[in-house]
Amino acid sequence: MSTPPLVRFGVSIESDLLQKFDRFLEHGGYGTRSEAFRDLIRARLVEERVQDPDAEAIGVLTLVYNHHQRELEEKLTDVQHHAHHHIITTTHVHLDHDNCMEVILLRGKVATVRALATALSSFKGVKHSNIALTSVRDI
Amino acid sequence: MSTPPLVRFGVSIESDLLQKFDRFLEHGGYGTRSEAFRDLIRARLVEERVQDPDAEAIGVLTLVYNHHQRELEEKLTDVQHHAHHHIITTTHVHLDHDNCMEVILLRGKVATVRALATALSSFKGVKHSNIALTSVRDI
Amino acid sequence: MSTPPLVRFGVSIESDLLQKFDRFLEHGGYGTRSEAFRDLIRARLVEERVQDPDAEAIGVLTLVYNHHQRELEEKLTDVQHHAHHHIITTTHVHLDHDNCMEVILLRGKVATVRALATALSSFKGVKHSNIALTSVRDI
Amino acid sequence: MSTPPLVRFGVSIESDLLQKFDRFLEHGGYGTRSEAFRDLIRARLVEERVQDPDAEAIGVLTLVYNHHQRELEEKLTDVQHHAHHHIITTTHVHLDHDNCMEVILLRGKVATVRALATALSSFKGVKHSNIALTSVRDI
Repeated sequence: MSTPPLVRFGVSIESDLLQKFDRFLEHGGYGTRSEAFRDLIRARLVEERVQDPDAEAIGVLTLVYNHHQRELEEKLTDVQHHAHHHIITTTHVHLDHDNCMEVILLRGKVATVRALATALSSFKGVKHSNIALTSVRDI
Repeated sequence: MSTPPLVRFGVSIESDLLQKFDRFLEHGGYGTRSEAFRDLIRARLVEERVQDPDAEAIGVLTLVYNHHQRELEEKLTDVQHHAHHHIITTTHVHLDHDNCMEVILLRGKVATVRALATALSSFKGVKHSNIALTSVRDI
Repeated sequence: MSTPPLVRFGVSIESDLLQKFDRFLEHGGYGTRSEAFRDLIRARLVEERVQDPDAEAIGVLTLVYNHHQRELEEKLTDVQHHAHHHIITTTHVHLDHDNCMEVILLRGKVATVRALATALSSFKGVKHSNIALTSVRDI
Repeated sequence: MSTPPLVRFGVSIESDLLQKFDRFLEHGGYGTRSEAFRDLIRARLVEERVQDPDAEAIGVLTLVYNHHQRELEEKLTDVQHHAHHHIITTTHVHLDHDNCMEVILLRGKVATVRALATALSSFKGVKHSNIALTSVRDI
């Protein structure tokens, strides 16, 4: 089995803060405090990690673009093929008559993933973009 | 044709700021200043829009989870089926021996998309999550 | 004494995750895990709270501006006086020959604080701005 | 006079996007489109710059803490004195009976400013913190 062993230890929290946290957990559907703590730890470690340009990361790049834009899809495909070893997969959604959404999963150093995201976002016709980074090493 | 008519107008920028911006555009691969300005405008409008809980939004939810976690995949699928009219599509990636990544595209009011993201992120076994919001109305 | 009573309880974390977290705490100078957990909880609760436009918040607004800009300082002062019951204090720094920095501490509903921040940031001559929100209710 | 010369050039924007932008500007109190574009450019350049750990930056660090916490104020003062060449000024606000807010303006390389912010935020008794970075070089 691949699940690592659990370590159990005691934590002290102010009673009123703990009450608010418990309400938050209940509202969000968390099963246990331990599970919630693990999530908070991982989120904090990932946040720290992806500030290092040399860290290994996974990027989720969202592009919204007008598919009527001449040659845009060719250009997007072209960049992705040149960087194919950094691209895991691409999901395409037809949002409405004009707009497409493409969610591209990237893998590589933080600096590489960011540079690819900028290259893909800056083409004429790409209307909105967002890059979210995560790190598998810390989770 | 669905492309709306372009309006042309003059803009005044300090010469040194414009120089820095042009260098940024060149480095990022932007074709023209106009294209870059459109991107900046849209990004600002979207940022504003998604602060309204009642605005229509598209959410890109990234989950990284341990697929050895008992019943997690059933639970994830279950929530998604109950909310199927808010879920456009789901992409699945096997990151390594233990970790899976699921990118779920959601559609609905900002508050609904956020609540769904929290519900899906809070299951035991989900190690990291990120929700990125965009708005089609402004782009 | 105003410190609320502490509640002590057990938490289970995967050993490898805990190791990474301990290294992070040591590096960051945290005294104990409990202290770090409290910080993570508060940060998460505040993040949630300030998404509600009606929540009470404190805003730290940073403005960088060119003090040679005609009438800018009068305008900034004017808006602040009209909103004086929302403004706690203002700190001023002379960054260099041309640039000033003003850090304005605001208090009020999230929506009010954001609107004031936009009003103060949008004057001609204000070159850069940032608004950070916190909530005292959750901490 | 220190104001650099303005360069005027033409920009083309889709009419419906421009309408939405004009409404946003009017609502936010912007005088002219040019002024708004300058702000968008500077914000984008600063965002880019502060990703470089070696870039010169100014940090606005917000700390909320319980002033009843034994020796906290001494520790905060102590760290600040050791780093006095990186600290421009500190503003203190008494939020309520228990809570104080301290806004510390820092100057130095991005990595240094971040490290100082972490050191000051991690003391027992500091309940919430936020670091906002800006860069004078790009604005």
